[in-house]
Amino acid sequence: MEEIQQKIEGRNPVIEAFRSGRTIDKVFILDGCQDGPIRTIVREARKQKSIISFVTKERLDQLSETHRHQGVIAMCAVYSYAEVDDILEKARSKGEDPFIILLDGIEDPHNLGAIIRTANLAGAHGVIIPKHRAAGLTAVVARASAGALNYTPVAKVTNLAATIEDLKKQGLWFVCADMGGEVMYRQNLTGPIGLVIGNEGDGVSRMIREKCDLTASIPMRGDIDSLNASVAAGVLAFEIVRQRMAREK
Amino acid sequence: MEEIQQKIEGRNPVIEAFRSGRTIDKVFILDGCQDGPIRTIVREARKQKSIISFVTKERLDQLSETHRHQGVIAMCAVYSYAEVDDILEKARSKGEDPFIILLDGIEDPHNLGAIIRTANLAGAHGVIIPKHRAAGLTAVVARASAGALNYTPVAKVTNLAATIEDLKKQGLWFVCADMGGEVMYRQNLTGPIGLVIGNEGDGVSRMIREKCDLTASIPMRGDIDSLNASVAAGVLAFEIVRQRMAREK
Repeated sequence: MEEIQQKIEGRNPVIEAFRSGRTIDKVFILDGCQDGPIRTIVREARKQKSIISFVTKERLDQLSETHRHQGVIAMCAVYSYAEVDDILEKARSKGEDPFIILLDGIEDPHNLGAIIRTANLAGAHGVIIPKHRAAGLTAVVARASAGALNYTPVAKVTNLAATIEDLKKQGLWFVCADMGGEVMYRQNLTGPIGLVIGNEGDGVSRMIREKCDLTASIPMRGDIDSLNASVAAGVLAFEIVRQRMAREK
Repeated sequence: MEEIQQKIEGRNPVIEAFRSGRTIDKVFILDGCQDGPIRTIVREARKQKSIISFVTKERLDQLSETHRHQGVIAMCAVYSYAEVDDILEKARSKGEDPFIILLDGIEDPHNLGAIIRTANLAGAHGVIIPKHRAAGLTAVVARASAGALNYTPVAKVTNLAATIEDLKKQGLWFVCADMGGEVMYRQNLTGPIGLVIGNEGDGVSRMIREKCDLTASIPMRGDIDSLNASVAAGVLAFEIVRQRMAREK
């Protein structure tokens, strides 16, 4: 994973960036500037807990790349995505059966970060997320991943179902986490595998579930409905680790 | 778990409550009131995402118990704790070996909530937390527990080490989650058990680790240091479930 700092300059572009939900780490504002748009930016920055730095015109001119900063420059982290092939290549280079975690619409960036962290420690070769209706890589995700984003490739795909079909042709088979399935301990989860984790509220979507070869469930011995999505991903990922270790013996 | 709504009345008491970090669900403010202390309360309420309701003097008088509300009444959730004996009694009434999760200083309320949720679904009979230097039960914890706080008793103790000693006399033995230990799959985690999970940053403290009968580790196959605390708790709790299920067969 590569982190690039992108500069956004000018009042409207910065306001737009905040409103579109981009993670802005820091915003430089011309000291003494108090008009409406600047006040809006300060308010949004406080809401998002961005660092606000009031600076001189000279400093802003120096930072500016466009020379049209209008008294405000925002610094925004951009994380680069891997390709699905990079993930398969990682498995190949280690001489291991591919182990990929696919997220069917995880929305909470803390969950996404925790799952990337888990993927790294469970020895998964990468994580695949869909382009739409899901959390993408932001500074919050990077922080929650506790550094795992530097090691574990994350690919973003337009059509998760099509990606599953492609990967099946390459020998992977797919297990989805769902309550209806056979208890995970009784299933064979070794070999080249894709583990599919569903959305926090709705679970795995029907279309994706139908693409999967099997459905595995975590035994539920309590009163409530379901585990936190990142906990469920951890429990299933380490069941795969357990079965792989038993086989390696 | 019982949730009681407590009323806090008057400007200074409400400001104090916000500053001490209590979770205030809702605050009623006299409509039109604009002085300094009220503005402070509105700012704190926005920061904490409490619901703010501007009401008439009549409504406030009606809500007031002290009749000295000074234009502001805050509603604050109070969660009641269980006793350690309640947890043991729950195991007894189900005819099961006790299974308790002990948290040695979990600080993040989202982690605490997620662990209570996991405890419920793994069939643990309760959770024990220390009184000091740890997250207590707040509205954030209740929300993150996804309802589990209504079913799974949580006890708060002054001295976690002494509680472990007491429980050992009642036949429990203790496993702590730590990287130095033998891999969990190779250990016998059946029988009456207490699972000890450490602090997010520092793990299990030395004093508590020394009280434990054994140390179990999750196999780490990645590049970074450790799992998120609530994920680690989930992986270990379900290894206990797996071993219990294998024995029940």
